[in-house]
Amino acid sequence: MGCHDAHARLAADVLLKSDLRGIDSHGVARLTGYVRLWEKKRINATPNIKVVHETATTATVDGDAGLGLVVAPFAMQVAIEKAEKYGSGWVSVRNSNHFGIAGYHAMMAVEKDMIGFAMTNASPLVSPTYSSERLLGTNPMCYAFPAGKYPPVIVDMATSAAANGKLEIAQRAGKEVPHGWIQDKEGNPVTDPHALKSGGALLPLGSDPEHGSHKGFGLSATVDILSAVLSGANYGPWVPPFVAFLEPPSDPVGSGIGHFLGAMRVDGFRPVDEFKAHMDNWIERFKSSKPIDSSQKVIIPGEPEAEAEIDRKANGIPLVDAVVKDLNELAERFGVDPL
Amino acid sequence: MGCHDAHARLAADVLLKSDLRGIDSHGVARLTGYVRLWEKKRINATPNIKVVHETATTATVDGDAGLGLVVAPFAMQVAIEKAEKYGSGWVSVRNSNHFGIAGYHAMMAVEKDMIGFAMTNASPLVSPTYSSERLLGTNPMCYAFPAGKYPPVIVDMATSAAANGKLEIAQRAGKEVPHGWIQDKEGNPVTDPHALKSGGALLPLGSDPEHGSHKGFGLSATVDILSAVLSGANYGPWVPPFVAFLEPPSDPVGSGIGHFLGAMRVDGFRPVDEFKAHMDNWIERFKSSKPIDSSQKVIIPGEPEAEAEIDRKANGIPLVDAVVKDLNELAERFGVDPL
Repeated sequence: MGCHDAHARLAADVLLKSDLRGIDSHGVARLTGYVRLWEKKRINATPNIKVVHETATTATVDGDAGLGLVVAPFAMQVAIEKAEKYGSGWVSVRNSNHFGIAGYHAMMAVEKDMIGFAMTNASPLVSPTYSSERLLGTNPMCYAFPAGKYPPVIVDMATSAAANGKLEIAQRAGKEVPHGWIQDKEGNPVTDPHALKSGGALLPLGSDPEHGSHKGFGLSATVDILSAVLSGANYGPWVPPFVAFLEPPSDPVGSGIGHFLGAMRVDGFRPVDEFKAHMDNWIERFKSSKPIDSSQKVIIPGEPEAEAEIDRKANGIPLVDAVVKDLNELAERFGVDPL
Repeated sequence: MGCHDAHARLAADVLLKSDLRGIDSHGVARLTGYVRLWEKKRINATPNIKVVHETATTATVDGDAGLGLVVAPFAMQVAIEKAEKYGSGWVSVRNSNHFGIAGYHAMMAVEKDMIGFAMTNASPLVSPTYSSERLLGTNPMCYAFPAGKYPPVIVDMATSAAANGKLEIAQRAGKEVPHGWIQDKEGNPVTDPHALKSGGALLPLGSDPEHGSHKGFGLSATVDILSAVLSGANYGPWVPPFVAFLEPPSDPVGSGIGHFLGAMRVDGFRPVDEFKAHMDNWIERFKSSKPIDSSQKVIIPGEPEAEAEIDRKANGIPLVDAVVKDLNELAERFGVDPL
C-alpha cells in the first residue's frame, strides 16, 4: 500500500498481537478490510500524524486519515510522555480509522507501570435504548492495570451486549443468536443474525431497559463523546463505517473516526510495589472465589488472552481457510510470498 | 454529630441534590444510615482530610474516616485545581465512607467547563460472573460532560444489572424482580428480592455470560481497582459495608472504602464553544432518533434528572412517610425542628 516501513511493521504488530491473544476477529483476518478502505481512498498510507492542540497533560491528535493501527500508538506515546512528566496524559484523536484491539494501546502504558485507557467509536450498528435507529458503534473501552506475579488485568470490552464478530460467527454457522443481542429494523427483538444487514441493530450492553440497556447506551455515549465530540471526529451515525455493507454518510460532522487514549503513572498514587502486591492479592481472591459450578472458575479480565498468548507463541496461530485464502490473494496482488 | 458547620452544610447539599434530581434512594432517606455508622464509630465527624501522595496531576487523599459526602468533594476540588494548572487532575481516595450520588462530584467539574469522572466501590453485594460469592459492590461510575443549550450529559450508573435500591422497592412492595437481577446463595437465578439478604447476590450488568455479564464484572473491577487498590482502601469483599445487614470484615486489606475522581479541561482538547456546539448537535440527533414506540422517545443520559430538578425546585420534594418518620426521630434526638 506504500506505508512507511515503520508504520507497516507497527500495524502488523498490532494485528499479530490480536491473533496471539486469541482475538481472531481483530487480527490478520481484518487485513483485507484495511486494504479495501485504502482502495476507496479512505485510508492514507503515508499520513502526517500530529498534535494539533495541547496542554501539559492533554492533547488532540489529527491522524491525517492514517491507519488507526498506527495513529493510536502515536497518540498513546504522547499520553505516556505526558504521564512521565506530569503523572498523567490524555489524548483525543480525530481523522483516524479502525485501530484494532483497544488492549494493544492500553497495554503500552502497562509496560511502563502505568494504568492504560483506550477507547474508540466505530461503525454505527447499535441502537440506543428505545430507538430503532443505528446511532452508535460497538464502541469498546479498555482499562489495563499492571500486576505483580500475575499477567496484567485487562478489561477490554464492546459496550454492546454482543460484538459484531460474534454475530458473524452465527451468520456463517447458520445459527440463531440469543434474545437480547439484536433487534430488527422496526426494533422488535429477534434471533436471526442476518437481521443486522437488513436494517436491524445490535443492542447496548444490558440488552433491554429492564436489564439496564440504558447503562450500555450511556457507556457507548461516553466512548463516542470522549473519542469524537472532544477531538473533532465524526460521532454517532456520522462515523464512517469499517464494515463493507455500509457507506460513509455524505454530511460528515467531523474528520474520520475518533479514539481516546490515556495513561496514569501508578507511582503518582502509591509506590508501584505496593500497588502490584495488592493487585496480586485482588487477583488471587477473585480467582479463588467459590464457583457456582466447579468446572468453571471465575475468569480474571485478560486471563484467557494471556493464556492464549503463551499457547500461540509456543504452538502457532491457527487460521481458518477463508482467512488464509484472503491473505494469499493479498500476497499475490502485492507481490509478497504466500502463506 | 459534631461535624464542622461547613462539612454539615456540604453533606446536606450532596443529599439534597440527590433528592432534587429525583434520586430518592441516595438523598435524605440515607441520613439515618450515616448516623448509624457514626454511632458505630465507623464515621469520624471531624476528619482531617488530606493529600498523602501526589504528582502535578495525580493525588491520593486520605479521608480520615470522614463522611464520603465531604471527602469526595474535597478530592474533586484537588482534581479540579490540578486540571486548571495542567489540563487534567486525578485523585484516588482511601479511608472514606459512602459518598452519595457520583453525579454530584462529577458535576463539580462540569461547572468549570471540565469533563468530570467519579466512581466508588461499595458494600459487597455483587457476584462476579461464574461465582456464588459476593465480592463486589454495585460500584457506580459517572462521566459528566458539559453541553451548550442543553443540560449536561451525565452518565451515572451502577455497574450491576440493577441497583440495590430497586431491589428494596420490590422487597417493600412484596413483588418479584425480573430474571437477571439476582441469584440465590448457591448461584441459581431467582426472582425473590429477599434472596439478597439470605446470602444471594446482585448480578453484574449483562446479567449472564451469554449477555455479557463478564463486561459488567470488568467494569465493576475497574471501579474497585481505581478506587481502592490504587489508593490503599479496602477492595472486593473487604469493603466495609454501608448496608445494615452486613458487618465489616475483621481482616481489612486497606483503610475504609475508596473513590476515584477526575477532571479534564475541555479546552485542553478543543475550544469550549466548539465542543458545546457539537454536544448540542449530538444531543439533538439522539433525542430526535426514531423511537420503536412513539410514546417513548430516546432518553439522553441525565435528562430525567435535569427535568426532576426543575420540577422539584418549583414544586418541592415529595417524601414517603417512612422517611419523614426517620427524619423526625433524628430531629428529636439531635434537638432540631421536626418536619
